[in-house]
Amino acid sequence: MCELLAMSANVPTDIVFSFTGLAERGGVTGPHVDGWGITFYEGKGSRTFKDAHPSSQSLIARLIKSYPIKSEVVISHIRQANRGEVALENTHPFSRELWGRYWTYAHNGQLSDYLPHFPVSRFRPVGDTDSELAFCWLLEQLVKRFGDTPPEDMQSVFRYAAALAEQIRTLGVFNMILTDGEHLLCFCSNNLCHITRRAPFGKAKLIDTDVVIDFDKETTPKDVVTVIATRPLTDNEAWQLMTPGQWKLFARGELLCEGQPG
Amino acid sequence: MCELLAMSANVPTDIVFSFTGLAERGGVTGPHVDGWGITFYEGKGSRTFKDAHPSSQSLIARLIKSYPIKSEVVISHIRQANRGEVALENTHPFSRELWGRYWTYAHNGQLSDYLPHFPVSRFRPVGDTDSELAFCWLLEQLVKRFGDTPPEDMQSVFRYAAALAEQIRTLGVFNMILTDGEHLLCFCSNNLCHITRRAPFGKAKLIDTDVVIDFDKETTPKDVVTVIATRPLTDNEAWQLMTPGQWKLFARGELLCEGQPG
Repeated sequence: MCELLAMSANVPTDIVFSFTGLAERGGVTGPHVDGWGITFYEGKGSRTFKDAHPSSQSLIARLIKSYPIKSEVVISHIRQANRGEVALENTHPFSRELWGRYWTYAHNGQLSDYLPHFPVSRFRPVGDTDSELAFCWLLEQLVKRFGDTPPEDMQSVFRYAAALAEQIRTLGVFNMILTDGEHLLCFCSNNLCHITRRAPFGKAKLIDTDVVIDFDKETTPKDVVTVIATRPLTDNEAWQLMTPGQWKLFARGELLCEGQPG
Repeated sequence: MCELLAMSANVPTDIVFSFTGLAERGGVTGPHVDGWGITFYEGKGSRTFKDAHPSSQSLIARLIKSYPIKSEVVISHIRQANRGEVALENTHPFSRELWGRYWTYAHNGQLSDYLPHFPVSRFRPVGDTDSELAFCWLLEQLVKRFGDTPPEDMQSVFRYAAALAEQIRTLGVFNMILTDGEHLLCFCSNNLCHITRRAPFGKAKLIDTDVVIDFDKETTPKDVVTVIATRPLTDNEAWQLMTPGQWKLFARGELLCEGQPG
């Protein structure tokens, strides 16, 4: 199992508080010691920090915890390897360019007998995880369905991506987060939850380490920030647990649409 | 104008010494204040650090200077914007996946009236620089020539990439570095030079800041390390200046093949 973390916000927001909690699970409060990564979008641009070392010991993780990169969309992942050796090329999140946008993806779970289900040619995995291959296959299906030109209706693209995720879920556990830098799709297989913070803001206390934040001092009344995680990161807020097969699409911190299996 | 820096080595080697000199040109000894980026390959995996702030002031650049990431191939770039605004999506190096490898590229120079020359569909630019569009077009030509399956003879792929670079050079100044994580192609339009360090190693002194390194203490007798830069980084070594249209292909620190225009 791995841990996922993502954020969608209507103003550039730093994720230092949530990442501080997540990073503890990489070797201190959790067993996820096989690397970690985080992707920040700033406008259409993105940058990814990755390390094949445990996040609780990583110099780069320390930088992220102390350096408030302001971002509208963030995806992060800490890894406990099951498929694929511990190596940089197997470290999430994975990114590819499609339709002039960087698409970024992270997966929590494990798939079985998946190879015959994921023929790819245009998008190929660099590493040897089930996760990256499933991502490549998913993007390839988007191109087959919508073509080489960026479609206007991106909601229909993400609805189709959710339907593909439902197909992938038949092969094992597939909690997934996918973004084009604007939209953020969360697909739940067994463990995924989220919280949307908006005015009036209160205090939040991390579960994994002794840190409290007063969001009222860090935000403006118009801020809307949704955080998605494998398990709740704070113990004094009402996280919404997602159900198997459920998906939600966020943009600028707000829920755009959602769906259930069947 | 911008500054390029690249490395090809036969053992994982850190680039702290050379990057320390380059980073000074980002706002201290040089005018390149519009961002910087560096890509490290570790096996097939890669990670890129980018910042739209001057490298001489960047917290992340400070991390890179103090954190010896060992790598066989590195590409770095500091930017003085001419085409495209100062933004993360316009910051080099640019990367795309092709044939199951991450391809990374950086460009120094400026092109004119280039738009009609670079039709793209499969690989699209995310930002609005001439550099990224030329990269997308170049990769698209590789797919047109060699197809969707990774070719066996990668030298012929890079020979073709050099011929494409020669075409692009007719549109302006095009100093370019391109890698698939194993091979490193350097194409010179007007400013590019390189040095290959091997035993017996000596001392080297940076031009841009008062740092001396004794490579004899940092290396083993079998190490071969080639460094490529826009302008020489040290003042007590014999850098080889490349000539307009000349290209060189390196792998594991050694020169594989080279060519001249026409």
